[in-house]
Amino acid sequence: MSRGLFITFEGSDGAGKSTQIQLAKEYLESIGIEPIMTREPGGTSISEKLRDILLDKENSEMSPIAEMMIYASARAQLVAEVIRPAIERGETVVCDRYIDSSIAYQGYGRGLGDIVEEVNRVAIDGVMPDITFFLDLDPAVGRSRIRSDEMDRLEQEKLDFHYRVYNGYKKVAEADPKRVAVIDASRTIEEISLEIRTILKEVCDRKGL
Amino acid sequence: MSRGLFITFEGSDGAGKSTQIQLAKEYLESIGIEPIMTREPGGTSISEKLRDILLDKENSEMSPIAEMMIYASARAQLVAEVIRPAIERGETVVCDRYIDSSIAYQGYGRGLGDIVEEVNRVAIDGVMPDITFFLDLDPAVGRSRIRSDEMDRLEQEKLDFHYRVYNGYKKVAEADPKRVAVIDASRTIEEISLEIRTILKEVCDRKGL
Repeated sequence: MSRGLFITFEGSDGAGKSTQIQLAKEYLESIGIEPIMTREPGGTSISEKLRDILLDKENSEMSPIAEMMIYASARAQLVAEVIRPAIERGETVVCDRYIDSSIAYQGYGRGLGDIVEEVNRVAIDGVMPDITFFLDLDPAVGRSRIRSDEMDRLEQEKLDFHYRVYNGYKKVAEADPKRVAVIDASRTIEEISLEIRTILKEVCDRKGL
Repeated sequence: MSRGLFITFEGSDGAGKSTQIQLAKEYLESIGIEPIMTREPGGTSISEKLRDILLDKENSEMSPIAEMMIYASARAQLVAEVIRPAIERGETVVCDRYIDSSIAYQGYGRGLGDIVEEVNRVAIDGVMPDITFFLDLDPAVGRSRIRSDEMDRLEQEKLDFHYRVYNGYKKVAEADPKRVAVIDASRTIEEISLEIRTILKEVCDRKGL
């Protein structure tokens, strides 16, 4: 049996990730694939406990390096417990955020630089996505879609942080164009979904799924 | 003002660390130094939450890489919040376990190898101890001092794991003999304490404390 497909979605808050992930799931199901859906940070019992620490507004004194490492810890557990076993069984995995989020948010957003990729390469232990959809939307547009009273600690950060994150994503996409599909997320939900389905179909065909 | 002294204690469980740390504290106080006492994993609110995850017996499915990274996360927060600010204020810090514990337990004990030092060099961000006391005791002797019903998840691991840890500590000490003082911990409490006090006095004199 061949190794399953590993698909990730990336992008700033408000870019429409949740909606597109749901539509991608429905598309995969329509072609006979029941994907395993997971999210970061979280997706395992241990990773959810780490997520609680990360998103707790009381932990505002968290150091940038510690924050980056807690994300990497949650990712390491998710890879070991969920993602690697699933793709080795031949199953398809869809993950909401993965290593690129850390590179964009901690590496570029927090200014930690190359140590983020260095630590996260250890965390993912060789498990890279086959295809990553980067939902490309100007952060000012994305943030206007989120109600401020629903914002968690990270979302409360200033807009210039989100522009650094956005530019980080663009650098990641430029560095690995074969893996990262840049999706113009300023269009309608249906237009975006159609492009994602088209790319997913190509990837599935290539894999013989 | 000169940078404060950073002192760490290392060794297998049962080697007498807690007793010797207390005696070292009393010695430092006797020469007019009020040290900041801390421990790993823990020492900050965030690090204590991470410690709870690490020591929870329910988390036995934790992956070795995730475990290593959670220790590194707790250490990164402790360095940023406690150790670096204190030594920069000129204070003396005594820490129960530090980077060498990860190298010994995760690198050698769990067999993760060089990635442990790589990740932990990021975590400590340049803050290395001035002096590390490695309490050198055969693990079989050390374990006989701990009641089995008081053992936590790590302590329940098999004895061969503890021998790998012990050999890891010896490698660390061999690689950095200027920093790591190997203390024969098979002797009496008073003999061990006397040797530690003698070394501490030399280090304090050298620093002009």
